[in-house]
Amino acid sequence: MTGTLPAPSIQAALSSLAGWTTQPAVRDAHRLDRSGYDPGTGPDAVVFAESAADVSAVLAHAHATRTPVVVRGAGTGLSGGAVAGEGSIVLDLTRMDRIVEISPEDELAVVEPGVITAHLDAAAAAHGLRYAPDPASLAISTIGGNIATNAGGLRCAKYGVTRDSVLGLDVVLADGRRLATGRRTVKGVAGYDLTSLFVGSEGTLGVIVGATVRLRPVPVRTATLAAWFPDFEGAAAAAAAITAARLQPAVAELLDAACLEAIGADRDGAFLLVQTDGFGADAEIDAVREVVAPLAGRVDLATDPDEAEALLATRRAALPALERLGRVLVEDVAVPRSRLPEAVRAITAISRRSGIRIATMAHAGDGNLHPILVLDPGHEIDERVWATAGEVFTTALELGGTLTGEHGVGLLKRRWLRDELGDDVLDLQYAVKAVFDPHHVLNPGKAL
Amino acid sequence: MTGTLPAPSIQAALSSLAGWTTQPAVRDAHRLDRSGYDPGTGPDAVVFAESAADVSAVLAHAHATRTPVVVRGAGTGLSGGAVAGEGSIVLDLTRMDRIVEISPEDELAVVEPGVITAHLDAAAAAHGLRYAPDPASLAISTIGGNIATNAGGLRCAKYGVTRDSVLGLDVVLADGRRLATGRRTVKGVAGYDLTSLFVGSEGTLGVIVGATVRLRPVPVRTATLAAWFPDFEGAAAAAAAITAARLQPAVAELLDAACLEAIGADRDGAFLLVQTDGFGADAEIDAVREVVAPLAGRVDLATDPDEAEALLATRRAALPALERLGRVLVEDVAVPRSRLPEAVRAITAISRRSGIRIATMAHAGDGNLHPILVLDPGHEIDERVWATAGEVFTTALELGGTLTGEHGVGLLKRRWLRDELGDDVLDLQYAVKAVFDPHHVLNPGKAL
Repeated sequence: MTGTLPAPSIQAALSSLAGWTTQPAVRDAHRLDRSGYDPGTGPDAVVFAESAADVSAVLAHAHATRTPVVVRGAGTGLSGGAVAGEGSIVLDLTRMDRIVEISPEDELAVVEPGVITAHLDAAAAAHGLRYAPDPASLAISTIGGNIATNAGGLRCAKYGVTRDSVLGLDVVLADGRRLATGRRTVKGVAGYDLTSLFVGSEGTLGVIVGATVRLRPVPVRTATLAAWFPDFEGAAAAAAAITAARLQPAVAELLDAACLEAIGADRDGAFLLVQTDGFGADAEIDAVREVVAPLAGRVDLATDPDEAEALLATRRAALPALERLGRVLVEDVAVPRSRLPEAVRAITAISRRSGIRIATMAHAGDGNLHPILVLDPGHEIDERVWATAGEVFTTALELGGTLTGEHGVGLLKRRWLRDELGDDVLDLQYAVKAVFDPHHVLNPGKAL
Repeated sequence: MTGTLPAPSIQAALSSLAGWTTQPAVRDAHRLDRSGYDPGTGPDAVVFAESAADVSAVLAHAHATRTPVVVRGAGTGLSGGAVAGEGSIVLDLTRMDRIVEISPEDELAVVEPGVITAHLDAAAAAHGLRYAPDPASLAISTIGGNIATNAGGLRCAKYGVTRDSVLGLDVVLADGRRLATGRRTVKGVAGYDLTSLFVGSEGTLGVIVGATVRLRPVPVRTATLAAWFPDFEGAAAAAAAITAARLQPAVAELLDAACLEAIGADRDGAFLLVQTDGFGADAEIDAVREVVAPLAGRVDLATDPDEAEALLATRRAALPALERLGRVLVEDVAVPRSRLPEAVRAITAISRRSGIRIATMAHAGDGNLHPILVLDPGHEIDERVWATAGEVFTTALELGGTLTGEHGVGLLKRRWLRDELGDDVLDLQYAVKAVFDPHHVLNPGKAL
């Protein structure tokens, strides 16, 4: 797999770094992420950076020698953004895992990129604060990776995506220079918003070596409701009714019949989980119940944290249950919320036509659907599977949506990107890329 | 003032557009914005664009002939961003003022750039929605101008700045090509975030001819509290105590003694206005009162909308009262919230040293200060005044803040921009500018 020997120039340039290795087992382990895509070969070397200076040294070398660099956090990406093949160096940032500062006064944290997202959240909790973005991977993914993909999560509809929590970045450019974008203030309009440009750029514009992120108060109260419906249309109609009543849940999650079947729920149809938070959480969940109850087959309201956890468990069980059924391809389209029922209808039809089982969970509050293609164990993700995924992507675009709500384009969605963005926008993006990385050494072949 | 004749080439190229004029009175009126800066000369022509096609025609001509184009909304900018001198064309977008769509289902609106911000908010209110960003100018400024400066307002600490409400843009590039960025969904990570790059770029990267903006539910309840303190330190300490109690007001506004004196308030010292909103507004304002009361000389709680308006009136009266005292220069620095007391102490000292009266109001929730330099009526904003403003900017930077929280760099703050951004970041910004506008025709000499 990674039997080729690394180029002598890499060895000479990087062997002074403590975390540099060409061990086949390490290189082999660093060729994959969680997308399931296998590049067939592995990187020539892996550097476990311990400081921004290490990152600068690697990039200066790569820039000078035109060597591709694949930046990597925990490798939990689902789009192939961290996949690394022959001729590349993997820059692993997991050792840069210090929480440098938590400022309860300014409600912000300064972190290194390798900090596990849940660790930041736990550290903030000691001050009554939290890091709001909550991707499902938060227990295993890093802040740097979350920023690179502009990760979302369950609470986005109310609290925004990762970009909305990033105030400033410390970045090493492709040529090894280091610079700071943004600031420690919530507001600021001096110069173009380079911070937002780096967020979601999947390691193709620079390497994030530090981030100043916003923290928010832990809500004083949370209230939770779960409702079961005869079918997905009914559940989606209930979600739309919550919106129409101008309520603002922190979480609104949908599971379809295929998800419920996989987890062995005692009910079929569809499931909607809603959480409200803040000083008015109880009053707001009552308002949600009034709207939802006439449409639902059953409504459960949690009155204490244990009951709430039991309701949340149904949502959390879905992906692991699907993974037990076979090999999964987790997709990530988003549509305007009003088009959710159409999207699920279309996905169900695609599943029937293709014969591939597709289970869908959705963040109803922001129209972000995760259609999960479930293949037989060991089944290849072959062209037939991609053709089916492609139909899902096309459906999302036809409904005014996007290929990817929160996972990123990576390697695996590049072929549909032009369909979404069009020639002029994509050309402009390549021109921006050339400003930051003229020799195309940063994660080449990804994101664009 | 505008006695020079426009170049024949401009006449030939643009005279087919209905809204094109070279009338001296119109040109003269379009040379200024509300910054008070007078370029001495005026533009060669003014085009009142009525469509994206008009904008494309103007830009294609400007690009081909290297003619500077100054884009203009209502001209309410305070940093000189819309100031236009000899040799330029002003592209006035106020006639592009259609609200194209309001989607209550997707909680968004599609608007042309010349829509007055308050008009959008009013149209949204018919559906129980609002446009959250609320710059003080909202009754007279346009959405396009708000986007160009990433305008803030009072509700930003809870609801974010303009960027946080912009989902997508319809833009005409410098060469006249038209393209769309972003989407109708809340989430989306396909391609670099060009939307955020255009937001706050002050007309230097492209011309916004349409915007898809997020709307949010009008809060079901609002509660308001006003507190008076012996001095600004006490008021700032109360604001910090609200943060430390992990409360999240929608509005937290501070006025210093100079503001209170100007409005003829029956109390001196300092004033803090707090609003909470949502289902828990009353419970949250009670929590605010518990924190604030021990520190304040007096606390008033509004129990109905009329009382709330009376409390808000004190805040709203400040700027008009200062404007009646003389000529004002409204500054706009931001610092990390914890540095607010230091910032106001330093500003008071600067005022004493310079002999220039400075009154300060602040958005306490996000550390955004508006130090208002009050000069004698008719006084020039001369080098001595700029030196004093410069000391305020330097203070903000020393405290880890920024030159401009929400007004933009425009023409007037450019000389301090390098101090904030540093050489590498500024160079990168110029390189990005060159990708979008290689001939430097879009608002040259502004923002960067």
